[in-house]
Amino acid sequence: MTENSDSIKFPERWVKTVSLTPPSLKDNTADADRLSGALKRELRTDFVQIDLRVIRMLPAFLRKSNYKVRCVIFRDRERYILTGVLDSQTDNPAAGLAVDLGTSRVVIRLLDLAGGLTLGESAFDNPQGTIGPDILVRIHFAGSSEGLKKLNKLIIEDLNREVRNLCEKCGIRPENIYLVTVAGNTAMTHLFLKIDPHWIIREPYIPATNRPGLVKAEEIGIAVNPLARVMIFPNIGSYFGGDLIAGILFSGINKKQETSILVDVGTNAEVVLGNENWLIACAGAAGPALEGGVTRMGMMAGPGVIDKVSIDPDTKEFSIHTIENKTPVGICGSGLIDLSAQMFLAGMIDIRGKFVPSNCQGRLKEKDGIFHLMVVPAQKSATGKDLTISQVDLDSLIRSKAAMFTILETILGTVGISFPELSAFYVAGTFGSFIDPRSAISIGMLPDLPLESYKPLGNSSLGGAALVLTCPSCLDDIDKIRDRITYMELNVNQDFMNRFSAAKFIPHTDTARFPSVKPS
Amino acid sequence: MTENSDSIKFPERWVKTVSLTPPSLKDNTADADRLSGALKRELRTDFVQIDLRVIRMLPAFLRKSNYKVRCVIFRDRERYILTGVLDSQTDNPAAGLAVDLGTSRVVIRLLDLAGGLTLGESAFDNPQGTIGPDILVRIHFAGSSEGLKKLNKLIIEDLNREVRNLCEKCGIRPENIYLVTVAGNTAMTHLFLKIDPHWIIREPYIPATNRPGLVKAEEIGIAVNPLARVMIFPNIGSYFGGDLIAGILFSGINKKQETSILVDVGTNAEVVLGNENWLIACAGAAGPALEGGVTRMGMMAGPGVIDKVSIDPDTKEFSIHTIENKTPVGICGSGLIDLSAQMFLAGMIDIRGKFVPSNCQGRLKEKDGIFHLMVVPAQKSATGKDLTISQVDLDSLIRSKAAMFTILETILGTVGISFPELSAFYVAGTFGSFIDPRSAISIGMLPDLPLESYKPLGNSSLGGAALVLTCPSCLDDIDKIRDRITYMELNVNQDFMNRFSAAKFIPHTDTARFPSVKPS
Repeated sequence: MTENSDSIKFPERWVKTVSLTPPSLKDNTADADRLSGALKRELRTDFVQIDLRVIRMLPAFLRKSNYKVRCVIFRDRERYILTGVLDSQTDNPAAGLAVDLGTSRVVIRLLDLAGGLTLGESAFDNPQGTIGPDILVRIHFAGSSEGLKKLNKLIIEDLNREVRNLCEKCGIRPENIYLVTVAGNTAMTHLFLKIDPHWIIREPYIPATNRPGLVKAEEIGIAVNPLARVMIFPNIGSYFGGDLIAGILFSGINKKQETSILVDVGTNAEVVLGNENWLIACAGAAGPALEGGVTRMGMMAGPGVIDKVSIDPDTKEFSIHTIENKTPVGICGSGLIDLSAQMFLAGMIDIRGKFVPSNCQGRLKEKDGIFHLMVVPAQKSATGKDLTISQVDLDSLIRSKAAMFTILETILGTVGISFPELSAFYVAGTFGSFIDPRSAISIGMLPDLPLESYKPLGNSSLGGAALVLTCPSCLDDIDKIRDRITYMELNVNQDFMNRFSAAKFIPHTDTARFPSVKPS
Repeated sequence: MTENSDSIKFPERWVKTVSLTPPSLKDNTADADRLSGALKRELRTDFVQIDLRVIRMLPAFLRKSNYKVRCVIFRDRERYILTGVLDSQTDNPAAGLAVDLGTSRVVIRLLDLAGGLTLGESAFDNPQGTIGPDILVRIHFAGSSEGLKKLNKLIIEDLNREVRNLCEKCGIRPENIYLVTVAGNTAMTHLFLKIDPHWIIREPYIPATNRPGLVKAEEIGIAVNPLARVMIFPNIGSYFGGDLIAGILFSGINKKQETSILVDVGTNAEVVLGNENWLIACAGAAGPALEGGVTRMGMMAGPGVIDKVSIDPDTKEFSIHTIENKTPVGICGSGLIDLSAQMFLAGMIDIRGKFVPSNCQGRLKEKDGIFHLMVVPAQKSATGKDLTISQVDLDSLIRSKAAMFTILETILGTVGISFPELSAFYVAGTFGSFIDPRSAISIGMLPDLPLESYKPLGNSSLGGAALVLTCPSCLDDIDKIRDRITYMELNVNQDFMNRFSAAKFIPHTDTARFPSVKPS
């Protein structure tokens, strides 16, 4: 709990320009104390920490800049820290860096701390993927003598390279980055800090730390200003990481009077329900069908990947949209949802998700006793082969969507509220940006709420990390989120299984719960 | 001002043994949070900072030591910091190092933080003396491009070597040192932290910092445990350093209801007067006569140095005592005071400090028109030459003692109290340990108070530094001393000069002020 958190007055930005009264025989306060005194008045605080390295440069710097300087500050719980001093005359920006430390993809955003504007953004594959795409593999690898060191080196080096490139594009120097925020899941965060995540995956699943807090950039080898502070988002436990805390922060559900829900869909479905008074979270395996890699044509979103499908209910003709309008190479989660929703509405699959051959217009082929439906013929695909979806793929999707819906039902049931009581339904992640809620409702993955309730958040983890750089009071919100959230272990009991079975139909056994879904 | 300082509950020692409840599925708090939680309860505080490096070793360490560990903590203003974790089973001591960072001599003391006992002590010449014995020379030298670096390297390297040797003698490893306290004057402190002291000696005399606070040992290259915190005593200004704050702390005058005085005599006489409610300090040039190096036979205390002299009033025979009873090589400040007091009492010098040839029993020789008195003849001295004291030496001593007395009179006059109102008169420094107050009174350097008022403190700077290692609440006292003290610039006006002139006699123009001094 942050003590006195209610009394904290946060500044508007992390950059403050201060003018000092020059020293005299009547006021011979030391340079560092003079500066911290001015900042204390400006920030209405009792103490501002100044690093030795800043103290060393202050005497010459203050005199050169006529005692008027721009200061980059940050807050470490109850104390302010001065992380950089800039001449008020130059237009070197004081920049901040937000990092979404994903297991497979890392996204970084550079911001101007004073103005709050984004300067640039870029992304790269997490190089630890070469050790193992799966986080479990990496955790095991970290147990070997040199493993942790190697995993850490991979991510730090690639991040430094990417930061250098992005800075160059934006015309600033990495030394001008004075603050860094990092949101990642618990295991990724551990590897980033070179902490062995060994116990995260072993009962009783204990992280080394829930609140890594602030570290100096140089302490962990981040090649920005050596005194820049790196703020690592806290986690709730081994399976609820800082990326989700960042997502909650970005969604703002923790500040609203009305109850709303945040869903981050991937291999795991992570769900947070709540309002300004309480937050409850859970995570469950939604099945990998939604993330690509499972259906033979499934993949992550990228150029040529089918992201939207519509089927004429009468002619059963397919209209296919690919990312960047490239020749089709495969399908991503949102495309798959569109496809199955459209097939259901066109009568090509039944309520169990099984192909209805009579309605499939010769697109079905049988292979080893399993039906495959041709989505894109070989001559029109970039792979030179038919892009197909099989009954196995559909079965997998049905399980995933049923799991998703059951998780939603369960968490709402726990607090005794119904779907229509939700004021908003936030969908995070790339998936959330591409998904057509209409289609997700049609297959019964998401509840049948008015379409305007659904709000895509995009990369909410990056969004939350960036928010802290431009909104100082958000630091306080993070603590509040962390302290207020209740993490609910999903108890896969008979109740859950009953709900799951009922949800394994399109849209649901109880069609009355999906009045807007009307198959032809 | 330390906020909430009144509500701070300090622990008894900087070492705490804590037992943690091992983690379980019902309590999956992370390792670092589990430890900080236990410490928070133990210390009744809201937050305990744990460094990344400790977090990294915690998971394995906690499990190995069955969740029972000894923790070394320290306090940085309102927050506790964990600076080391030790197995509760081993008997590796958690040690602390106190450093008296003198301009000419550095003294270090090793302590057991848990028990508070001194493990060992040693001293070495400040190697910066090779650049210049005088602090001014060093400050100028620090202004050159490589000068500061060199001065810093000299002191850090020699300190590390001495610490290594002392640790070896005491049977511990430098890694077992988890706390370091350093008390030095403002310029020495700057050089120790590699901060250019340039502006300290230039009007308006501005240090880079008054409160360097805590730094990690590794940050400044101190070869102890890398996470050990180094606490640098704050200063009041360019001419009132952390060594004096440490001295005040050690004397305890800041905690007494009655007013007392602390005097540290060297080239400068530093004086602090006060009680639990107020403190006033001033420093003035007392002349170098008391420190050695000025009279041709004068020197710092050391083997063979004359530290005590008595003269038979009738036979005028000299009894000479030397340090370690070695053959005489010279005389130190306290010996000089004894000598002149005894000569005055024996009538060999008059009230102006001039030789009275008729009473000098053939010990006087004239050289270039200046009288020299033979103290030790050539055949009995270690130098093979007569050890003598000249009229010039005596004149210089008279000026020094008069300055000292005048400074004392002035500071007491400022607050309107008289000498007899002082409950105690602390004399710090090597000088204070060797001086015979009886002799100092006889020549009128110190006021004619009951001899039991005079209390030698020894190395009060080292004493204060060591105190912080064994008395956590002393940290708070330092802040209070620093915040409460008023530094008075010695205004050498007509009043001062009048007092000075009156004090240039032995013991004083107004002999009624020295009723106990009765020359033969």
